[in-house]
Order: sequence, then structure tokens, then C-alpha cells
Amino acid sequence: MPTWTEYIFQKKLGHTPSPGDVVEVVPDLVGFHDLTGYHVLEVLESMGKVEVFDKERVVVAFDHLSPPPTQRAAEIMVYIRKHVKALELPHFYDVGGGILHQIILEKYAMPEYVIFAADSHTNTAGAVGAFAHGMGATDIAAALKLGKTWVVIPAPFRVDMKGEFPPGVMGKDVALHLLKQFGAEGFNGYSVEVFVEIPKAFPMDDRATVANMSTEMGADALMFIPDVVTVDYLQRERGVSYKPPDLQPGRYVDKYVVELSKLEPLVAAPYSVDNVKAVREVEGVEVDQVFIGSCTNGRLSDFEIAARILRRGRVKSRCIAIPASYTIFRKALELGYIDILTKAGCVVTYGTCGPCLGGHFGVAGPGEVVVSTSNRNFKGRMGHPDSKVYLANPATAAAAALEGKIVDPRPYLL
Amino acid sequence: MPTWTEYIFQKKLGHTPSPGDVVEVVPDLVGFHDLTGYHVLEVLESMGKVEVFDKERVVVAFDHLSPPPTQRAAEIMVYIRKHVKALELPHFYDVGGGILHQIILEKYAMPEYVIFAADSHTNTAGAVGAFAHGMGATDIAAALKLGKTWVVIPAPFRVDMKGEFPPGVMGKDVALHLLKQFGAEGFNGYSVEVFVEIPKAFPMDDRATVANMSTEMGADALMFIPDVVTVDYLQRERGVSYKPPDLQPGRYVDKYVVELSKLEPLVAAPYSVDNVKAVREVEGVEVDQVFIGSCTNGRLSDFEIAARILRRGRVKSRCIAIPASYTIFRKALELGYIDILTKAGCVVTYGTCGPCLGGHFGVAGPGEVVVSTSNRNFKGRMGHPDSKVYLANPATAAAAALEGKIVDPRPYLL
Repeated sequence: MPTWTEYIFQKKLGHTPSPGDVVEVVPDLVGFHDLTGYHVLEVLESMGKVEVFDKERVVVAFDHLSPPPTQRAAEIMVYIRKHVKALELPHFYDVGGGILHQIILEKYAMPEYVIFAADSHTNTAGAVGAFAHGMGATDIAAALKLGKTWVVIPAPFRVDMKGEFPPGVMGKDVALHLLKQFGAEGFNGYSVEVFVEIPKAFPMDDRATVANMSTEMGADALMFIPDVVTVDYLQRERGVSYKPPDLQPGRYVDKYVVELSKLEPLVAAPYSVDNVKAVREVEGVEVDQVFIGSCTNGRLSDFEIAARILRRGRVKSRCIAIPASYTIFRKALELGYIDILTKAGCVVTYGTCGPCLGGHFGVAGPGEVVVSTSNRNFKGRMGHPDSKVYLANPATAAAAALEGKIVDPRPYLL
Repeated sequence: MPTWTEYIFQKKLGHTPSPGDVVEVVPDLVGFHDLTGYHVLEVLESMGKVEVFDKERVVVAFDHLSPPPTQRAAEIMVYIRKHVKALELPHFYDVGGGILHQIILEKYAMPEYVIFAADSHTNTAGAVGAFAHGMGATDIAAALKLGKTWVVIPAPFRVDMKGEFPPGVMGKDVALHLLKQFGAEGFNGYSVEVFVEIPKAFPMDDRATVANMSTEMGADALMFIPDVVTVDYLQRERGVSYKPPDLQPGRYVDKYVVELSKLEPLVAAPYSVDNVKAVREVEGVEVDQVFIGSCTNGRLSDFEIAARILRRGRVKSRCIAIPASYTIFRKALELGYIDILTKAGCVVTYGTCGPCLGGHFGVAGPGEVVVSTSNRNFKGRMGHPDSKVYLANPATAAAAALEGKIVDPRPYLL
């Protein structure tokens, strides 16, 4: 009766490891992007020949400063492209392809995979039940060259999602609720395993948001135990069949139950991801800029709910909307969301992290207040140290854009 | 029998000035953008109270580094917004509104207007027969405060456009042809007055491209003498009636005739706007990035012809496509061009100068070759000093994106 974590590593290792064990594993996927790719390749160069253990398992995407806003960013891309070409890497996504984590999720990640990438939000692929974990560029370089790396087996923590979301509540609010309960380091050393009581009531996009923000909770990984939603997602999006193993729940070091029906729209107020408040408590805060996008909330259902709200009129604050990948942009275009968002006055582009990291396409100025669907609101994260970022779900973000201030999004969804 | 230049200034001054005269005029419009606006306002601050002579005549747009990719750019916007708000300027276009020159053209410029803005490509508004001229930030600050500025009356140079464009030839090729004939300083001290033999064969968008690039020829202004196309444009786009005066042609210091039917698609090869060659002569040059946009060629018909070519398949080089204004983006979206461009793999956003100036959304890296519809290809203009820029019309640019190399666009339009 293994936990999902034990099950994955047992398959990799041939034996069941215990929490705290240091083990060596062969990764199923290794990834890097423009910002970290430069360091990954520099380290590989310093190790002698630039080579990778299996080019089919390497995913590279330009997302952080893409299209490049500086000469340095452009230079780094030229350098990475040179190596990608020489190595003949088949899974390379140049400018406009999408955010690395979203590309891994929508095209490559499978349940039971072990995935490492040179970015902290690699956790995102836990949405489909992959053990996905971010590492530094040096570790990723070693994993690429050697075809293996080490992992400290984390302690399994069980979270149960009970019931269904009320209108206007989304995966983001689950993540913020967990941050409120456990704090920004609450899951340090844990592998969080999520069991969903009513699978179809917790769609894949919301799972991705929660897995993504488990990084902010300190989790080594957060994995949704594969269920019918996982199976349907892989079939629908990729035509891939997957049959979840028939496992009895294992033994967890701790447990927590989220009653979805009791949640309400939340925000993380400046300057910490765990400074969580109800939207009600911060209503009326004036907003200069709204950002809808990022690896946290740049998926189709995020734009669907934003469009439902923004079709009501024109934005009163600036609004930057960036679907996280080419595929999502194309779907949003076909479904009319891009029409609605731009009619409302949002600036749209696609396939970049955009303003999330404070170095691209919408950097916050001094004194500005931003409502963002991204994952971090530390001082200066999105720009000037005197800017203030409220993290919120896309409904709250869209309603804030529409009104120019933070408001409860729920009345806008009636 | 005045020239158009004499007619405009005669109305302003009450007498007919001669070339070389230094006169004081009250401008009809004064403009600035994010990059120059900072200096304009600093100068106004240094002159005492920040005030403008007539807020109805002031147009401000954020376009160069918009949405801001750096803290400095964001800071400048916060500073400018503060003044715009205090001055209650009604014609302010924040992030996503569009490029200043395009906004002036599509919303404000009228024939006979005298327009000054803090950017060299102010000339663009000559498309509707306005005397439009770029000035430094200090001069613009003085004009804003005093409600007047000085002009050296330029010598009138007559250009006649005879016949019709062959397929695949556009206003851009007229501009490049003139640069080839007269050089990058060929029209220094001149006001170029353009007479179109068959008005409807030379649409407004192509006129704007020629007027825009007259800056590269050194012209103080380039004006299309208002005709039925001008009248129709103002009526259709703005619902404004205009009746051109019944003038007999005046006396010009020089003349030149462009036989449109004899033109072919041209490029300006690195590193000078007047290093003009036929596309035929540079066919096969491999291309890393294509840019379709800017105040030169970011208008609806530019995207219409790009879409005609890009509907044939997927781009082989990166392609960045940026409609010059919100209005153009919305029309391009409604007409399906955005669908075609993104299906082909172009990265799209709107209302910014983008990579034109080498500091935003697609900076060229070392050794990269760019085909761009913008207006300058000096060493380092679009990024790294070792990048190379070929200026071309949007058909040539789209065909280069499709093939990953420079090709004659005409077969793609059959």
C-alpha cells in the first residue's frame, strides 16, 4: 500500500524508498528556459563536451524574456539556439511557443513521470500526477549530461479536496487557502498528494494552478492522484491512453481536508504569498494594472472566466492578458475570448511569462498597485520595490480591471 | 498660385513666406510619447509651472517601451501619467492605445494642419496633407507652453506619382525608390509635395508609409496634396467633411516623377536606408526574424497583404506582427488577419513600436538577420551591432517569414 510518491520511486528504483533517503533516478523529462538555459549550457561547456543523455527527454522553451526586450536577452537566445541546433533537440520552443511549464504539461508530462527543470515552478506538472521538481541550473546540467540525478525522498502529505467549487472560486483560491493554513514554508520537505472526491468538479486547469503554487508552499512536489479527469485530459489533448494503477492509499505523515464549498475568492496581499485575505477584506483598493496570465493562471479556463466578466464593458485599469502557450492562445482566439478581452481594452500577446517576473511587458512602476494571477508578490517581484502586488484568481483579476479597484468577482458571474 | 506649403503658412501668418524665412506659428497639434515625454515634462518643470497652451491640441501616447520592459520605463510612465492627470489632457493614450504617429493620423490630423511632435517620424501625418514635423523635446516643451514655435520655411519640391502599383509593390517601395534616387539627405531643407495622378490607386496607408519615411530622406515634411482619397478617408474613418481648396500648382524649386508601374519590390540593405536594392538582388539571404509593424507599415492594408501570403503555411523564421494601434488591431481581428497570422505562427501584440528601436519585444541578437517593415536599419538600430536589418514592404517581409529567407513576394500573391 504505497503512497503515490513511493509508487513512482519504487518503479524507478526497484525498491520502495523511505522519506529522507537520498536516491539516484533517471529523469523522464529535463527542461530549461531562456533565463536558466544560459547557465545550464555554460555548466555543460565547463564539463567538457556539451551533450545530453537523451534528446527525446529534453524540453527547452523561451518564455521569461521573450520576445527579447534587451540585447542581453537576445544574445542568450542566440547562444541557446546554437546549442539546441548542434544537439538536434527536437522539443525546442522558440519565441512565442509558450511557457516551459505549460508546454511540459500540455505536451509531455505523464502520470508517474519524474521531471526536473531549471525553474522553481516545475511543480506544475504535478497536475497530471508527475513528480515534478525545480532545480538549479548546475543540477540540471549534471542531470542532462549524466542522465541521472539525486533526490531526497520527501515525506508524503495527504490533502483531500471535498465537494465542489462555489461560483467564482477556483484552483487559485485553494492554493491561497493552503498558503494561509500552512504558510510559505508549510510544506518544506513534503510531497503533497491530492485526492479529489469529485474528479470532474476539479478540472485540470485548476489542478495545474494548485500544483504550480505548491512551490510557494515549499513543497518538493504536489501531485494530483490520477483519476478520470487525468485520463480524459491526456486522451482529449494528446490522444494518449493512460490507465491509473489500482492502488490502496498508503501511509501519510499528515493529512488535511479542503472543503471546497466553504472557500471564497481570496488574495495574497503585499508582500507575501501567505499574507492571504478574503477579497471582501480588501475591496475598494485602487488598481493600476491587472495581469491575467503566467504558468499559474494563463490557461484556457482562466481566460474563459475572465472573458465572462470582461464582456460587460471596458477596463478602467490597464490590463495585460497573456495566454501561457501558443495552443492556448489559438483556442482562446477561436472561442472568441481574445475578441472579448481586446474589445474590453486588454493588451494581449502570448507565450511569455510577461510581467510576472518584473522584467518584461508590463513592469510595475513606483507606487503602482497590481492585481495579478501569477504566483509571487514579494517586494519588487513585478517591478519597482514600491509597487504592490495582490495575487488573485482570474475572475477577481478581471473584475478588478473592469472596475479599476478590487471587488468581489462573484456578482459579475451571475 | 501658392505651393501647398505656402498655402498652409499663408493661412497661418496672413502673408506668404519665402523659403528660408524664419516664422512663428501656432501649432494645431503638439505630441509626445513615453520616451520623449519625460524630457518634455522635465523641461516644462524647469520653466516653472507645468502648463500647456491648449489641452485640446495635445496628443500623448505610450508606444516606444510599452508595456514597459524595465523599471525605468515604468517609472517614466508613472511620471508622465501624473502630469497628464494634473493637466487633464483629454487625448492621452496609455499602454495599448497605439503608436503616436498612427493615433495622430487616424484620429486628429487634418489637411492644412501644422503639427509638431517630439519624434522624428511626425512627418507621417503628411499623408493627409498636414505639415507635420518632428522636433526635440526642448522645442516641444516650449511650443506646449508658449503655444507657438519657429519654423524655417522649407523649399518646395514636387513629386508626381504616375500610374498604378504593380502587384506586390507598395508605398514602402516608393519611399525606398526615392531614397535610392536622392539619398538619405536628399530632401534636407525641402518640403516635398506629392501629387497623385490616379488618387484611388495610391491608398491612404501607402501615403502614410511614404510620408513616414520622408524623415529618412531628410525632408522637413512630405505632404500628399489632398484629393478624393483624403476626403474619403476623413469621412469614412472620422465622419469629418473636408473640401480641398481649388489651387493651381505653385512654383517648385525642383520636380521628380515616379512611374509607379515601373517599380518592383525593393529593400534597404544593411546598414543604411539608402542602400537600396531590388529584392531580386538579395534573394536567398537567410532570415532569423521578421517584423511586420511600426509607424511605417503597421496599418490595416499592411496586415491584409501579409495575411494573403501567410495563409499559405507556417513561418520558417520567427515573425513578430504588431498592428500600430488598438483600432487597427481590432479591425485586423475582425477581418480574420490575426487568425491567419497566428495560425502561421507569428507572435502578435498591438499598439507598440516593438522591436523597431532595438529595446523592446524582439531585439535582434548578434549575427541575426532581420527583415523589417520599419524605417531604419543603421548598425545596431534593432539590437546587437552585429545584427543586420533589411527594410522591406509587408509582402516581402511576410514572404521572408514563410520561407526563412528573402524571396520575391510577387509569386505568393498570384
